[in-house]
Amino acid sequence: MINLEEIKDPSFIKKLSVKELKELAVEIRKFLIDNISKTGGHLSSNLGVVELTIAMYYVFDPEKDKFLFDVGHQSYVHKILTGRAKDFKTLRQIDGLSGYINRKESKYDVWESGHSSTTISAASGMIVAGKDDERIIAFIGDCAIMNGVALEGLNFLGQLKQKRPIIILNDNKMGISKSVGALTKALERIRGSKFYVFLKKVFNFITPTFLSRFYHQIKRGIKGFIQRDNIFEEMGFNYYGPYAGNNLKYCIKMLKKIKESKEPVVIHFTTKKGKGYAPSENDTVGDFHGVGPFDVETGIQYKKENQESYSKLVADFLCERRKQEQFYVVTPAMKSGSKLEEFAKLYPNDFFDVGIAEEHAADMAAGIALQNKKVVLLLYATFAQRAYDMLLNDIARQNLKVIIGIDRAGVVGEDGPTHQGVYDVSMLSAMPNVKIFMPKDDKETIGLFNYAFNHLDSPIVIRYPRASFNKNNYDYTYECNPSWELLKQGKKANVISFGPDVERITNIDLDINVYNAKSIKPIDLDTLKTIFENELPIFVVEQVVASGTLYDKILNVKEEYGYKSKVYSISFKPDTIITFGSINDVLARYGFSNDEIKEFIESKLK
Amino acid sequence: MINLEEIKDPSFIKKLSVKELKELAVEIRKFLIDNISKTGGHLSSNLGVVELTIAMYYVFDPEKDKFLFDVGHQSYVHKILTGRAKDFKTLRQIDGLSGYINRKESKYDVWESGHSSTTISAASGMIVAGKDDERIIAFIGDCAIMNGVALEGLNFLGQLKQKRPIIILNDNKMGISKSVGALTKALERIRGSKFYVFLKKVFNFITPTFLSRFYHQIKRGIKGFIQRDNIFEEMGFNYYGPYAGNNLKYCIKMLKKIKESKEPVVIHFTTKKGKGYAPSENDTVGDFHGVGPFDVETGIQYKKENQESYSKLVADFLCERRKQEQFYVVTPAMKSGSKLEEFAKLYPNDFFDVGIAEEHAADMAAGIALQNKKVVLLLYATFAQRAYDMLLNDIARQNLKVIIGIDRAGVVGEDGPTHQGVYDVSMLSAMPNVKIFMPKDDKETIGLFNYAFNHLDSPIVIRYPRASFNKNNYDYTYECNPSWELLKQGKKANVISFGPDVERITNIDLDINVYNAKSIKPIDLDTLKTIFENELPIFVVEQVVASGTLYDKILNVKEEYGYKSKVYSISFKPDTIITFGSINDVLARYGFSNDEIKEFIESKLK
Repeated sequence: MINLEEIKDPSFIKKLSVKELKELAVEIRKFLIDNISKTGGHLSSNLGVVELTIAMYYVFDPEKDKFLFDVGHQSYVHKILTGRAKDFKTLRQIDGLSGYINRKESKYDVWESGHSSTTISAASGMIVAGKDDERIIAFIGDCAIMNGVALEGLNFLGQLKQKRPIIILNDNKMGISKSVGALTKALERIRGSKFYVFLKKVFNFITPTFLSRFYHQIKRGIKGFIQRDNIFEEMGFNYYGPYAGNNLKYCIKMLKKIKESKEPVVIHFTTKKGKGYAPSENDTVGDFHGVGPFDVETGIQYKKENQESYSKLVADFLCERRKQEQFYVVTPAMKSGSKLEEFAKLYPNDFFDVGIAEEHAADMAAGIALQNKKVVLLLYATFAQRAYDMLLNDIARQNLKVIIGIDRAGVVGEDGPTHQGVYDVSMLSAMPNVKIFMPKDDKETIGLFNYAFNHLDSPIVIRYPRASFNKNNYDYTYECNPSWELLKQGKKANVISFGPDVERITNIDLDINVYNAKSIKPIDLDTLKTIFENELPIFVVEQVVASGTLYDKILNVKEEYGYKSKVYSISFKPDTIITFGSINDVLARYGFSNDEIKEFIESKLK
Repeated sequence: MINLEEIKDPSFIKKLSVKELKELAVEIRKFLIDNISKTGGHLSSNLGVVELTIAMYYVFDPEKDKFLFDVGHQSYVHKILTGRAKDFKTLRQIDGLSGYINRKESKYDVWESGHSSTTISAASGMIVAGKDDERIIAFIGDCAIMNGVALEGLNFLGQLKQKRPIIILNDNKMGISKSVGALTKALERIRGSKFYVFLKKVFNFITPTFLSRFYHQIKRGIKGFIQRDNIFEEMGFNYYGPYAGNNLKYCIKMLKKIKESKEPVVIHFTTKKGKGYAPSENDTVGDFHGVGPFDVETGIQYKKENQESYSKLVADFLCERRKQEQFYVVTPAMKSGSKLEEFAKLYPNDFFDVGIAEEHAADMAAGIALQNKKVVLLLYATFAQRAYDMLLNDIARQNLKVIIGIDRAGVVGEDGPTHQGVYDVSMLSAMPNVKIFMPKDDKETIGLFNYAFNHLDSPIVIRYPRASFNKNNYDYTYECNPSWELLKQGKKANVISFGPDVERITNIDLDINVYNAKSIKPIDLDTLKTIFENELPIFVVEQVVASGTLYDKILNVKEEYGYKSKVYSISFKPDTIITFGSINDVLARYGFSNDEIKEFIESKLK
């Protein structure tokens, strides 16, 4: 038996027999379930790729070849094989083991793909600038392959004939939630051709290795009769598959085969997401995609009683509002993440999960708005970055009446640097016509969404955090306006903030005015003037990278009107890369805890 | 003969015979050549689509159906047919006729696609929210179809079976410069199958209309023998084509046919870019894509003697620098626009025009940098918006050593609102590790590029404008550092600016200090402190949308150090949408002319 924690580097794999490799797979699976049940993390996707990852390390040369994981959260097996099992106790905790590829962690981590679908393009660059005998292998999930940058990458990479790029397509038929679109259907079609699969299996097993080099040509010759061409071949790749990706022996055999290919290759494996752990295997909605700690026996995740997330609250609101008027909801693959299952079930004709396609989602919302229909575009703050040009050029510039829900705004915690929702305010502040709101609590979330629906005359962004709160009974018709509000009165200073931060700042034991800046853009100029007029120092607390955000807007007003009050910023400076860890740990690291805010304010008031 | 200037709306077309329609095509072509030779504009692409556009208006119902043009600059014929011929005298001039789709201009302009490839996604939205009897038609060029958002759109739209979307693919085999990638090859393959094309022609002409509805099914039945499936069918569309798009009668016939289709359709026409004007037909590099005024007889564009563009200067520099050390150049379809033909010819293995695929280009550059090779990524400022997430998450966050040349920074003139290069400084200022420079003139351009090559320890952005200057003999090894520089001394005020604006400001008759802020990020804190210390008012002149840009950075320093000098901003405010027109007209409109800058400063000094 192999002690995973004693692995130093992946060289040991080459010496193992297939039987031993299979034992290794069993060990790894057990290790993943045990550890992730304690720390939380990405479970299903990693359970699915145990055999494939082992086979990659067995067949290729990790000291020379480069493996790019897309998305990065399916890299846990890779982390174990490259000597990081012992660090899993600290998975996704501050200063611990990252849940994604991290170049600082290991020389085997070559591409930090936090957002999906970037590996084919990155591989293109590595290949053109790489050594001739170095193989670059993009390992990409089925839902990531349908994103625009992946498709642009395929279009390019397929023509690099002589450089022998390899794309391993890990097809678990699901993606983050269920994949959508024609490509998914194309994959289904390929998978569904039983006779072809059978024929191929037979062919693969009966032909000696020297013949298998001609495999593709032979396949082409007989394909007309048994299978359509597929999109990968259209894109210039030799396509192999689909193969059983949880059959270790078979994975090794097929990877060895395509290793010899002289042309660009897409090799397609079907794997079972959650393989080897029943609750995860049986999960069809994505509950086991990213999990918190859970009970291994039952698969039940430990959750606080009566806790509600902002995502769920917004989804519930949309269901309620929909009873009152028709509108559309568009989300790029975040149906489960944004808790939209209920809405999708109730209003299937008004709901569009377009897959990981943020650019398409934004322009589709624009198209809906141009038909004079209301539409809610739901994006995670970090993924909104993918749609910058569409948000600016198509929605904002055309002043289209789209409600844009920005989920997971601010620090997101364990997903870390690539996923922090801290750039959206900077991004959106430069865009014409756009209004940006953030509610301080659950009730205000409903209030601002109703305001948006009732006064929709421009793009309205409502951002809300990855956070939970105690459930309440809500009046879903409650509307509040976005003007700034004095939440607490004091004599020593003014604090201006937005979102749930403003709530907790009222609890800091300081003699201060606390203002809730519900509208970040436009700022509430009248209220801001009254704030300046009390001439107390102003502290702007904003959980964003501060470049063109609230602090800068307030300085602009100060300068224009010649106000005197000193203005301080508690924020992330533009050169900060915010680490992973629990939200509280991360906030404390960067000066956002109540204690630190208090200390900062007191130090400046001295 | 039809007087184009008397056209009020497109209803007249329905009444014309095919013979008259052909005469109309001749008239339009003559009109386009005459007018564009005087005003400049997009010539080749519009000459290519004369017949197709007429056929669209003849076959469909513009009062009910919606035409989406992608890219928008191939819409001149559409403009003529919808009653705007009389405005062509003012094409692309301030307050004149826009060179793109403009919803304020006409009710027939439904989608303002400034940047390419957005129409399929916009059409998706219009279709799901539209009426049942309304046909939504995306008219898209061959080079636009390969961009990520178009591919995401295809993937989505192909599954909207019952909504009968139509994509007209205008394939002129060229795109803006030559299209690249596997998709282009796939199109070539389709076009190349002569026997199939012949067979289809015969089939189309001999079958009665009722049978043609079964055309697709029949085609499928016999296709196995004569043609491969293609990517559009993989994506869920019924594919028709390729057809001769400059044969008016044939265009009408085929569009009528597919109008009856009950399924999503891609109809593929091949057209001749520049059709009907020899100099434009024979142009293989894209000189006639966007033209200035030219002589109709000879096709020679009127150009000032001895004038050089920044694009050409940078391209020349890259050729010179390449003699000294190996590096790569990556551009998304701007080989001709960025004058890179010479570099591409001399160093074909180090040069990659990846087509209109900004996201891929950025990640490919990241991949090259990760192989410890130098790489120059050249983007137009406006198109850099497409790669926001990759620039931030992949290049900046990973601190990769990429030199990013931002071409056409600032006001671009005639292309107008969708193409202004005024957001990049705001965008890039929020990104970690990124340095942003802008040279004041030709010599400094070389100086800063050499600085970037010689001191490359982070992503370095060098932005340069769409402008020309008198050619010089250059020392291509000249290096200058990016610290701020006092260009002119005075006693009344400080002006801080960057780029060629700073040069012309030195010529304003005012008793002022003029500082050249070569480095926009990081700012030159030492110099800025000395500027604040003279306590004169500071005027920050920047041709960008001011949100997190130089003005905000300077206010941050003022606030942090408690300086007293008043700071004024001459810039575009975030809610500005900057119109089209000559660069000088546009600058004057927004207060950037020398007279206006002088006036503004004088008014504040009173």
